[in-house]
Amino acid sequence: MAKDKKQPRPKAETPKGFRDYFGAEVTGRKAMLDQIAEVYHRYGFDALESSAVETVEALGKFLPDVDRPNEGVFAWQEDAEGDKPGDWLALRYDLTAPLARVFAQHRNDLPTPYRRYAMGPVWRNEKPGPGRFRQFYQCDADTVGSASVAADAEICSMLSDTLEAVGIPRGDYIVRVNNRKVLNGVMEVAGVLNPAQPDQFAAERGIVLRAIDKLDRLGPEGVRALLGEGRKDESGDFTGGAGLRDSQADVIMAFMDAKRSTGRETVARLHELVTGSSTGAEGVNELETIAALLATQGYGSDRIEVDPSVVRGLGYYTGPVFEAELTFEIRDEKGRPRQFGSVAGGGRYDDLVKRFTGQEVPATGISIGVDRLLAALHAKGRIATDAIGPVVVTVMDRDRMADYQAMVAELRNAGIRAEVYLGNPKNFGNQLKYADRRNSPVAVIEGAEEKTAGVVQIKDLVLGAKIAASASHEEWKSQPAQFEVPRAEMVREIRRILAGER
Amino acid sequence: MAKDKKQPRPKAETPKGFRDYFGAEVTGRKAMLDQIAEVYHRYGFDALESSAVETVEALGKFLPDVDRPNEGVFAWQEDAEGDKPGDWLALRYDLTAPLARVFAQHRNDLPTPYRRYAMGPVWRNEKPGPGRFRQFYQCDADTVGSASVAADAEICSMLSDTLEAVGIPRGDYIVRVNNRKVLNGVMEVAGVLNPAQPDQFAAERGIVLRAIDKLDRLGPEGVRALLGEGRKDESGDFTGGAGLRDSQADVIMAFMDAKRSTGRETVARLHELVTGSSTGAEGVNELETIAALLATQGYGSDRIEVDPSVVRGLGYYTGPVFEAELTFEIRDEKGRPRQFGSVAGGGRYDDLVKRFTGQEVPATGISIGVDRLLAALHAKGRIATDAIGPVVVTVMDRDRMADYQAMVAELRNAGIRAEVYLGNPKNFGNQLKYADRRNSPVAVIEGAEEKTAGVVQIKDLVLGAKIAASASHEEWKSQPAQFEVPRAEMVREIRRILAGER
Repeated sequence: MAKDKKQPRPKAETPKGFRDYFGAEVTGRKAMLDQIAEVYHRYGFDALESSAVETVEALGKFLPDVDRPNEGVFAWQEDAEGDKPGDWLALRYDLTAPLARVFAQHRNDLPTPYRRYAMGPVWRNEKPGPGRFRQFYQCDADTVGSASVAADAEICSMLSDTLEAVGIPRGDYIVRVNNRKVLNGVMEVAGVLNPAQPDQFAAERGIVLRAIDKLDRLGPEGVRALLGEGRKDESGDFTGGAGLRDSQADVIMAFMDAKRSTGRETVARLHELVTGSSTGAEGVNELETIAALLATQGYGSDRIEVDPSVVRGLGYYTGPVFEAELTFEIRDEKGRPRQFGSVAGGGRYDDLVKRFTGQEVPATGISIGVDRLLAALHAKGRIATDAIGPVVVTVMDRDRMADYQAMVAELRNAGIRAEVYLGNPKNFGNQLKYADRRNSPVAVIEGAEEKTAGVVQIKDLVLGAKIAASASHEEWKSQPAQFEVPRAEMVREIRRILAGER
Repeated sequence: MAKDKKQPRPKAETPKGFRDYFGAEVTGRKAMLDQIAEVYHRYGFDALESSAVETVEALGKFLPDVDRPNEGVFAWQEDAEGDKPGDWLALRYDLTAPLARVFAQHRNDLPTPYRRYAMGPVWRNEKPGPGRFRQFYQCDADTVGSASVAADAEICSMLSDTLEAVGIPRGDYIVRVNNRKVLNGVMEVAGVLNPAQPDQFAAERGIVLRAIDKLDRLGPEGVRALLGEGRKDESGDFTGGAGLRDSQADVIMAFMDAKRSTGRETVARLHELVTGSSTGAEGVNELETIAALLATQGYGSDRIEVDPSVVRGLGYYTGPVFEAELTFEIRDEKGRPRQFGSVAGGGRYDDLVKRFTGQEVPATGISIGVDRLLAALHAKGRIATDAIGPVVVTVMDRDRMADYQAMVAELRNAGIRAEVYLGNPKNFGNQLKYADRRNSPVAVIEGAEEKTAGVVQIKDLVLGAKIAASASHEEWKSQPAQFEVPRAEMVREIRRILAGER
């Protein structure tokens, strides 16, 4: 510590884009994670917790809008060992890439199909923005080793059940389903993809994918511009486009606009659009099967629907893709109404495990953005933001700390959250201010007089606040906020107050 | 993905020193964290979750045995912004240094004293070893802003309650308490510390501290060697010593050996050893007060005791230090009996917040090594390692997936964990092997015949396993492991099996 004198003081700040979570923010998130895990578990998924740190090569590069190596992730190089340079390590950016590594590593010890759920923070080395942090929670469920679209359908129904379990009522959300194969079929028809030479037009296809994914934000005109020559944004920055001809761009735009009022009509329209592409037809058939499986289980289009505008930004999807959107309006920071938007996304990624093993292992899954979902529930006032504080035993006489500790021990043994005031007890007002700040329901006072008389003073802080807020004190007269009880009855009286029985 | 063809396949491996946790390992830890949080919460502590990433300057350098910058932590430099070089960021190595940063940053919005608990992974860039990982869980509780030793005493009693709450019975653990001030007093008496010039002998004191902390591992002779000229270990490596004279080393050794059969006698012996040092006397008095507070609450020396050999390795402690040790024997990997050892440690660190603000903010707390505690409960057979699997609905006819999905939906709606087999259904034996691997209690079979007859086959896999293991099948005859029930009674019958009523 001696060195600190010579150095400037460190800044007490989280790094840019990171934040701390306090009290009810932490317990509220935990309660939601528990609810989600309960649904995942009931569906037969087992828990997995992989390490937060992975080798950069195991993670691969699948983040959207990321081209340079290590962009988008927090990465560092291990110390060299002798002549051998250290491995590059990185914090995981999602829970899917690590799952592929885990399955490849442990495949001989895991059941197949392997259903697993995982929850925890992920990290993105992105530019932070308002409400956009570089560490956030995901809660995923995936089925590895099943090629059946029944696995995809199940992910959709489970997602629907999960949203309702955490408090989003039916009607306030929609699970949208699409299929990358349909998009590939459409790109074949438009001539942006040649099935005989899949590597051709790779750059163009990447731009098309990212452009469609931005439909929400840029609107049809913006997407159209990106499909063509490119787009100048409000700040004047220019983003290069895919360079499609108008006739090609028309096909893509028609695809995004293919949603009809029923699933059946949407599927029929998609069949028209992919005519001539076997991949496209396969994709539409898969969508039909998924919709049929879900319909027989009662998941109608009020909960889950086929929507061709959903593509998801991540690079590893190969088949069905899913997105859950909250459909109610909230007010943004400036009080303007806006749709809340996406809270979960996922899809099928049949090639991720193959990266490691060379063998194709089909897989599908969903990732819930827990922090966004929490924000939505907050915005709707469906989460308590104020936790109730502990009973505070005040310190009237600092030499009798043992007495006060004995009082809280009694309360705690009775299952009541309680603590002794441990600050400087000199100023009694500070002790009551502290209890107020903690949102304490009750304070207990035992001075020398009380000690001699064998009594304690109990202060009902909730009632006290009501009286203070009330215009007339008359109605509270029969219920004084502070009263005296025999010491032996302290626990019983406090329990009555907490139960609302007094 | 096209690029992968040119590159070697990535290795499916966790980075060295990291590992994955599966199924019951995850849920078992979560259950333990919940139990610990329940006790912390009852004691009045509020939840805090700080970011996993901190600036290197905010974390400071307090790890034991670490001298070079960034040694011991995983750190990387942010990208530069224009001319401004990027900040150095690092993964937190404990939950205490981040708490000091949080309190300094948010002190105007937090109650004082601030009681908080936190749980989560921490990371150490250390050489991994058997059972020693570079990511592990801690679960901490701290009181910031209280100078009272009542806060230290409370941490000790809470630690004792917590260990019992997670399943360590009284008698199988001991919470040891010591005081850095007593150690400082002893070093004054030995002439290794000059209170008028606290920076003098800093290196010697560091070596003394680390040597005492290794008493468990090196024994008294090893510590004695480190206090003097140094020590050669079994591999022939030499560690330099503090260079104390024999008479000085005698004082330190007497201190470590000062424990007597009662707390009162130990305290008396410590008073003798620190005679002449006011810091030392203050430390012994604090120990006396802590012991007295705990004794009046019934925490006797069977649970909490004063033990001068406890010093804790971390550099930031300034007063009382605590350590919880499990006292039962376990067998190591080679079957040899050994004491399980330390599972929690903590102490008072009055200068950590001051690093940021310049103002002294007293603080004290405890950190439980959750993974070690779990390992202890496993070693004692007190944690279930096998979780029960889901009911598996088998697939006899892949075209009737919707029927099977409807069956699992019914089971799940009844609160029963269930799933359809989603692998390739061709080989029915594989489906039963899968159910076995999942530890499933029940499999359901509905072929074309059953469908027509309106029945399902229910296979009681637990009973089936018993029959298979039994020498005589006679006693099971009245209870066939597979039986047929009307489809409408499927849920009821399965519930009866799961409840053990059949």
